[in-house]
Amino acid sequence: MAALGAAGPRPALGEVRAAERRLRGRVHRTPVLTCAGLDRRAGRRLLFKCELLQRTGSFKIRGALNAVSSLVERGQRPRALVTHSSGNHGQALACAARAEGIPAYVVVPRTAPQCKQAAIRAYGATVVPCEPSDKARAETAARVVQETGGVLVHPNQEPDVIAGQGTIALEVLEQAPEVNAVVVPVGGGGMIAGIAIAIKALRPDVKVFAAEPSNVDDCYQSKVRGVLTPNLDPRDTIADAVKTSIGPNTWPIIRDLVDDVLTVSEEEIKQATWLVWERMKLLIEPTAGVGLAAVLSEKFQAVPREVENVCIVLCGGNVDLRSLTWLTDLSGKTE
Amino acid sequence: MAALGAAGPRPALGEVRAAERRLRGRVHRTPVLTCAGLDRRAGRRLLFKCELLQRTGSFKIRGALNAVSSLVERGQRPRALVTHSSGNHGQALACAARAEGIPAYVVVPRTAPQCKQAAIRAYGATVVPCEPSDKARAETAARVVQETGGVLVHPNQEPDVIAGQGTIALEVLEQAPEVNAVVVPVGGGGMIAGIAIAIKALRPDVKVFAAEPSNVDDCYQSKVRGVLTPNLDPRDTIADAVKTSIGPNTWPIIRDLVDDVLTVSEEEIKQATWLVWERMKLLIEPTAGVGLAAVLSEKFQAVPREVENVCIVLCGGNVDLRSLTWLTDLSGKTE
Repeated sequence: MAALGAAGPRPALGEVRAAERRLRGRVHRTPVLTCAGLDRRAGRRLLFKCELLQRTGSFKIRGALNAVSSLVERGQRPRALVTHSSGNHGQALACAARAEGIPAYVVVPRTAPQCKQAAIRAYGATVVPCEPSDKARAETAARVVQETGGVLVHPNQEPDVIAGQGTIALEVLEQAPEVNAVVVPVGGGGMIAGIAIAIKALRPDVKVFAAEPSNVDDCYQSKVRGVLTPNLDPRDTIADAVKTSIGPNTWPIIRDLVDDVLTVSEEEIKQATWLVWERMKLLIEPTAGVGLAAVLSEKFQAVPREVENVCIVLCGGNVDLRSLTWLTDLSGKTE
Repeated sequence: MAALGAAGPRPALGEVRAAERRLRGRVHRTPVLTCAGLDRRAGRRLLFKCELLQRTGSFKIRGALNAVSSLVERGQRPRALVTHSSGNHGQALACAARAEGIPAYVVVPRTAPQCKQAAIRAYGATVVPCEPSDKARAETAARVVQETGGVLVHPNQEPDVIAGQGTIALEVLEQAPEVNAVVVPVGGGGMIAGIAIAIKALRPDVKVFAAEPSNVDDCYQSKVRGVLTPNLDPRDTIADAVKTSIGPNTWPIIRDLVDDVLTVSEEEIKQATWLVWERMKLLIEPTAGVGLAAVLSEKFQAVPREVENVCIVLCGGNVDLRSLTWLTDLSGKTE
């Protein structure tokens, strides 16, 4: 079988609603939390959608489980599921595969941290080691697809993945109907595309902002130029889960439905992450700090005051607790 | 004015209901979260009441705000509020005082961490330094009470504090009516006393368990002997917020209404804390790990299987992020 996600129809609200039905009772309806101290700092009311508390530790299970379940629903039950993401999508696909009783194979560079490999195995998936290069990962994944007769589920360009991530927005609109804007970290763009589809169909008055590290600002560059502009040679970022670029399926949605892209520095991301840890007691991964960093940045001051209730998606919490030195180095800086 | 809490009537469900009314809209209704991985480990369904996500980072605001508000309601508005707790109660009383527009003074040993002093000042309270001994703290607090004409609110023996903490139980019974047992860390006993009053009045079928570090097992010893047995010379514990002993007002309630006391080792507390961080992404303080440690301990196997749905109160998250070395030392031990 071929890979999913290489191309495909643009999902609409109907697909997000279908995803909501498929996911019901199988993923957490994560809480929306508030923090008076951070409200004062931002000068607005902040509503934190806590996807770090989602099953598998990130929102990715929504898209992965929707993609796998909709294959099964269409009578296309795959013999195996394959991915070469060793991060949140890898764990999510492993978990989704187990939920549907389908074997999963996750291609992981030999150099990946043991804790990530352990997490993937804990969901019952097979870890397939490869050399640490993009080429080796793609080739190994292709080989595993061929050998197993499996399906590769793309982490962010697959339409059913995008529709699954959109269910975050349906929940936010129910949990916090007063919302005036949603701020979403952007990497491959699956989450913001799904959210934008749902928000703009149901509540076009609600702003949708992408938040992106300046070091990997392909979404920002694409919006400025009006043409998909991937990072050919991305710089490093502490927000490792959004290092990847938006792609052919998420770009048109972002182009048409996202109001603006806000970029933030590495220092801003670290400080925002520290604030969420210290003030909210939520163990977010740095990528989840990107949204708050954007809202606390000077640029956000230009957003009109009537955009009062701002929902920030805390997308994940899969941080390696053994590598916290950069956080403790920050102590005191945010007082 | 004299100190509150030295003696007083034993609160009943009516006082907990009154506290609920006073606190409405002024404290968070904290979420109850679940974690399939920890359910499997415990062999039961666990319901985590997330008081670490409460205002001020712990449940203490419930009791402090109820005590202060009920003074005001009775027309006994104090000129000042005083405490000598530099921990969670100190922050909570500072916050409650600010909410009612009353000056607050918190007596703090000169040796207390700067972050605690900063947190108290952030709530607008005055930090009064003293020498680092129990005697100096008590004497300094008494002097401040005299000088300011203020009221000292006891952190756990004051009946209105006990009633305030009991509102946790009212929320749990609404949020998770399937609950069969509640597990509560015990220090001075204010939280478990309030919870036991509400639970046994409304749902006497629900078990109430205290969880306590073996190193400071005064509650356990008191229950075994049937007589209040404070720790005269408590050993050290990582669960610093429960190092204090139960007292004259909480003891009779614990004696009559708490089903059992479960003690846990320092190692069990550390491992449980690590598990909540890693699996639930919740930045609990070690004291909040005491409940899960008890449920994962061998002793808990003796609790009948029909006690299936077990609520664990994650009481606080005020951990000093600059001192995480003991946690990272644990890496791998809980795989």
